Amino acid sequence: MKVVKFGGSSLATGSQVQKVLDIIQADEDRRIVVVSAPGKRFDGDIKVTDLLKSYADQTIAGADTTEILMTILARYQEIAAHFLLEDDVIISQIKQQLIHLNRVHYPSFDHLYAAFMGHGELLNAQLIAAVMQKKGLPATFVSPAELGITVTGSPRSARLDQESYHAISNYQIDDSRLLIIPGFIAYTNDGYAATFSRGGSDITGAILARGFHADLYENFTDVSAIYTVNPKIVPHPQSISEMTYREMRELSYAGFAVFHDEAIIPVIEANIPINVKNTNDPQTPGTMIMPNHAVNPSNPVTGIANDNRFAALYLHRYLLNREVGFTLKILQILATYNVSYEHMPSGIDDMTIIFDKAQLTPEIKAHISHDIYATIAPDELEWLDDYAIIMIVGEGMQQHIGTFSKITAALSEAGINLPMINQGASQISTMIGVPVDRMNEAVHVIYHAVF
Amino acid sequence: MKVVKFGGSSLATGSQVQKVLDIIQADEDRRIVVVSAPGKRFDGDIKVTDLLKSYADQTIAGADTTEILMTILARYQEIAAHFLLEDDVIISQIKQQLIHLNRVHYPSFDHLYAAFMGHGELLNAQLIAAVMQKKGLPATFVSPAELGITVTGSPRSARLDQESYHAISNYQIDDSRLLIIPGFIAYTNDGYAATFSRGGSDITGAILARGFHADLYENFTDVSAIYTVNPKIVPHPQSISEMTYREMRELSYAGFAVFHDEAIIPVIEANIPINVKNTNDPQTPGTMIMPNHAVNPSNPVTGIANDNRFAALYLHRYLLNREVGFTLKILQILATYNVSYEHMPSGIDDMTIIFDKAQLTPEIKAHISHDIYATIAPDELEWLDDYAIIMIVGEGMQQHIGTFSKITAALSEAGINLPMINQGASQISTMIGVPVDRMNEAVHVIYHAVF
Repeated sequence: MKVVKFGGSSLATGSQVQKVLDIIQADEDRRIVVVSAPGKRFDGDIKVTDLLKSYADQTIAGADTTEILMTILARYQEIAAHFLLEDDVIISQIKQQLIHLNRVHYPSFDHLYAAFMGHGELLNAQLIAAVMQKKGLPATFVSPAELGITVTGSPRSARLDQESYHAISNYQIDDSRLLIIPGFIAYTNDGYAATFSRGGSDITGAILARGFHADLYENFTDVSAIYTVNPKIVPHPQSISEMTYREMRELSYAGFAVFHDEAIIPVIEANIPINVKNTNDPQTPGTMIMPNHAVNPSNPVTGIANDNRFAALYLHRYLLNREVGFTLKILQILATYNVSYEHMPSGIDDMTIIFDKAQLTPEIKAHISHDIYATIAPDELEWLDDYAIIMIVGEGMQQHIGTFSKITAALSEAGINLPMINQGASQISTMIGVPVDRMNEAVHVIYHAVF
Repeated sequence: MKVVKFGGSSLATGSQVQKVLDIIQADEDRRIVVVSAPGKRFDGDIKVTDLLKSYADQTIAGADTTEILMTILARYQEIAAHFLLEDDVIISQIKQQLIHLNRVHYPSFDHLYAAFMGHGELLNAQLIAAVMQKKGLPATFVSPAELGITVTGSPRSARLDQESYHAISNYQIDDSRLLIIPGFIAYTNDGYAATFSRGGSDITGAILARGFHADLYENFTDVSAIYTVNPKIVPHPQSISEMTYREMRELSYAGFAVFHDEAIIPVIEANIPINVKNTNDPQTPGTMIMPNHAVNPSNPVTGIANDNRFAALYLHRYLLNREVGFTLKILQILATYNVSYEHMPSGIDDMTIIFDKAQLTPEIKAHISHDIYATIAPDELEWLDDYAIIMIVGEGMQQHIGTFSKITAALSEAGINLPMINQGASQISTMIGVPVDRMNEAVHVIYHAVF
């Protein structure tokens, strides 16, 4: 049995939804269907989730919400019309739920936003189920609450209650039914709507794959495979046919946008393979993500990711690494400001702390500098505001210094210095730092050296 | 004005001491002379400092110390005899001081050992001053106490009281006098003898160079220069003519035995250059260690050091680096057992903590493992007992990826994988980890790739 998740672009229009129906009907193992909210129909279009956010904004502002509500409804009507359902009861049900959203009392703005934005998926799942029923398919809309999925934590960054897996596995499914389930949204024990953080529908799919003990988690999106490198940097790159969970995690960490890396943890825990496929090209096998794969002895590199979301703090002090507790003091300072670090390469008298830039405001940086001066009195302290990282990922990278040597030779020939190389911390990747302004060039050079 | 320090092998015999006298007379700027205890005269010989340790052991055991005392005295007599001073008052003065050592009450065994072992230098300085006077040189023995040097802390690992620099600079010196000062030993404010830790005479020399505002600190030993690599691994290696303080520190950290790296901190602080020279070959210019030197554009590498004194702890847990406070917890555990770490390269879900093996007993490792399991529950925890590090050091290394590329190509050709590469943490070196059993081979390969 397969859990199948469709992304927003796969459900943006009626003709896209028709492709989804064809895909579901082509394989009778596809019985648990997770849907996103309707995505962009064209470049510059607004996703339904973002329309719902505007609706929430206007509701909070006490503005007239008639127009935004009609704009949202029109997106569902357009899909319904494709299947001659525009006058069906489903449209009035969707309208009623949209209107109801701004008549409810919410404990906080976060609760309000979660409820509004999660409705993109919720209403779309209802619509797709109605479309399927119209087509004679045995489809049933099922709410996450009916499945026993409960969440805790912040309403817009909910955490799964681990009991949910037990509840899901007790939910009766049979071969004759198709379950249509909204992604992204889930409910607390108190019955409040909440949403998962980034990558929300992917998380729902992964949770259901694990809960239902699926054989495969199919994730349909709008690319035919995961590429070995960002196609915006290297045009028409090779695609990846197989990769391991760990490779996926490392690539995703360093900028691969296919999955938010946390989304796949439930399937990793259950050892369920993931197949990334293209709704617009379902015959192409796509990319399999699985516990293990054979290493190509001539090239162990699976992918090259890059990201410039980092900043670094360089510290220098004599005998820095002789002092038990030096790093401890620094981490205590970071913890005070709730800042986590990404990496902390150290020399004898030097240490560089690499952060996700998003965590650092000028105030936080000033506080950290102040506290480090007061506590540790470094000889030097310097912030590097832009720090680009390239990750070369592949199971078996470590057993292939030849590959690494090819990469450094190519970078040397291109005259690109590497302010940082971190290999061996992860067993399957090498992380290199490059000057931000040469990041894209370095990615090119590495890609052509390796593939 | 120059501070000149002579090591134990330069003072092991009368004929060696003659070389020292010649060196001092050859340059009238050499006016502050720091002496070690007589060292080994031949392979398998016992240094006077080690004889004094045996004397201390026997004193504590209440054994008959006549023979050890005579053995020690004989070393000084042998030197004195070379200068026809064997019946001089200086020999009876040395004997009296040696006998007096075991008639004193010491506050602790540490105080006792410090007093006994520090006398190797103390008595030698007195003897050398007497020899010089006999030769008509204007030499005066000066005790560290007379110079105003005071120390605190553990008697066998004393720390300089920073007031000492002020006292030294106030000590009257004039062009007509030669001061002969014992290395290694110094006194607390209470008048107890104490010794510096490893590299003790080097530290005394460095302190005096700073205190007297010397133009140069000459360090005479038994090699004509610092070599670019360990000559026990690569026979007849190139020597280093110039290196910076930072290069010295990094090489010394990773196994270069010329200086204990902490010894040179006083001269670094005062920007005084160090000249390492050979007592047996004083015409050879030796190695200059100084604040800066010009980088050779064709090869920025100054030296290659290697050391296998490390052990590593590998940890793996999903989302390890997302958790504010994860590393903090680990460091708190290490601090509990007073263990410091050397480096901590990290991936996304992985972290390797590299330790100086000397700190780790099986008990401490078991405690650390236990506490980490209890606190952090890693998915994997593995100790790597032998971890070899090779440091490739050179100002400008980072601007020369071509050099790094040559190194990795050569290692690749030799089939040597690198479990760890850490570049960019230090701005002047690249640290690589290699399997212990291939360390020497890797050093060879790197040396021949670079030099």
